[in-house]
Amino acid sequence: MNVSQLISEIKSKKSYLCVGLDTDITKLPDGVPKNTSGILEFNREIINATKDYAVAYKMNTAFYEQLGSEGWKVLEKTREMLPSNVLSIADAKRGDIGNTSTMYAKAFFETMDFDAITVAPYMGLDSVEPFLKFDKKITIVLGLTSNQGSLDFQTNALYHPPLYQTVLQRVSTWSTMENLMFVVGATKADALQEIRNIVPDHFLLIPGVGAQGGSATEVCQNGKNKNGGLLINSSRGIIYASGNSDFAEVARAKAKELAEETQPYTTHL
Amino acid sequence: MNVSQLISEIKSKKSYLCVGLDTDITKLPDGVPKNTSGILEFNREIINATKDYAVAYKMNTAFYEQLGSEGWKVLEKTREMLPSNVLSIADAKRGDIGNTSTMYAKAFFETMDFDAITVAPYMGLDSVEPFLKFDKKITIVLGLTSNQGSLDFQTNALYHPPLYQTVLQRVSTWSTMENLMFVVGATKADALQEIRNIVPDHFLLIPGVGAQGGSATEVCQNGKNKNGGLLINSSRGIIYASGNSDFAEVARAKAKELAEETQPYTTHL
Repeated sequence: MNVSQLISEIKSKKSYLCVGLDTDITKLPDGVPKNTSGILEFNREIINATKDYAVAYKMNTAFYEQLGSEGWKVLEKTREMLPSNVLSIADAKRGDIGNTSTMYAKAFFETMDFDAITVAPYMGLDSVEPFLKFDKKITIVLGLTSNQGSLDFQTNALYHPPLYQTVLQRVSTWSTMENLMFVVGATKADALQEIRNIVPDHFLLIPGVGAQGGSATEVCQNGKNKNGGLLINSSRGIIYASGNSDFAEVARAKAKELAEETQPYTTHL
Repeated sequence: MNVSQLISEIKSKKSYLCVGLDTDITKLPDGVPKNTSGILEFNREIINATKDYAVAYKMNTAFYEQLGSEGWKVLEKTREMLPSNVLSIADAKRGDIGNTSTMYAKAFFETMDFDAITVAPYMGLDSVEPFLKFDKKITIVLGLTSNQGSLDFQTNALYHPPLYQTVLQRVSTWSTMENLMFVVGATKADALQEIRNIVPDHFLLIPGVGAQGGSATEVCQNGKNKNGGLLINSSRGIIYASGNSDFAEVARAKAKELAEETQPYTTHL
């Protein structure tokens, strides 16, 4: 899926929802086997239950790597389960020197055929460029993250403008909104207007709604642009909303609720 | 292996050499099958050929992930092959919000039992801390990297002191040299004296010797400390020194040469 198709999907589903498949084997609901088959079964049910409301799915690689090569197999199989009309995102936060980033890009864009991957900016242009070279794929660079640690460097008071603004400003010159997006935490909704001055056109992937305390409404109010420009992610708030056998049904209800919260901000599309 | 054992090993082998097992299936020597068994065979021969001179081995995860779950299996099996008297490093450059970094720490420190992992600093304390909580393991945070892209943010002229110095200064307060190290590129040997003023005690993992053009002698002159404090990595310069059936023998000779170049700087230990 590319950005134009994503915009159509947002328009048609009237939703900015991205569901995070951060599936933790220790948190599987009662009745789901606590093994890799159980994770696959859980992911399949969550995808089926939420796909009417979600325009994207984000799989955080850490949750799969924790289980070693067997977990990596589950990552591959879950990727294959995703419908073709959603954006598939590997939330991998990779980044390395050029020839190594090329290997990561191949791993996620070719071997697994993800539409998009998250990338860390610390190592600069030649660490990000190998991902951007895949012009039918999308590179999502960390801008301002949702966690407390963003204060250490991203908004360190020593630096004016703050580091995250320099990252957004500089990285946004490396490619267009067709294959570059940014991560901005929902817990930083007050910074979104300023961020939109720096990157008016690029999509923003917004984690941090739900368990981390961000508000989807505030994100939409401050962050939407003429193409929509938002992917609002919820992981724990949807997939673990119930720990019982009704988990899929409850996940669907939570996905619907979040999609409906964002719906008023899709009417201009 | 812990830091005290690493120091003993440096003393005994008179070497700071770390061999990078960045094994690329397309670059396997003639006669080695171009499949995952071939990679394993190659890694085994390289390890056996170089282990008299190397005090550490660094596996870059990108090269294995490129092959999907099968590649991840090779990563696991190669980890198992490493002798117990070398430091095993997963060069993974991970980093995410707290609960996710915990998953990465488990993946590399528990599931695969690596001694050390490289971590990206952009997301700050709560992204690094879950790794540091494993007090018998070593977290190696990116400081000043060897690539051209380090100019974009790490040494961006907007910022005084440069970002990488703020990273070294702040992160070094988060733990001791017993379980925290830093990555500093060998191509930045002139910055090493200044770096030693900021982090006098911590070990530095130094990639960029060989293919990337850094000098091991300059690194030792400017970077060594009272405990040695250095791991000098060469990957391509050793493992692909010959593309023929003599690859292991030539790798051994290259490893010996680099170890001997660093030897004069181990005599104070």
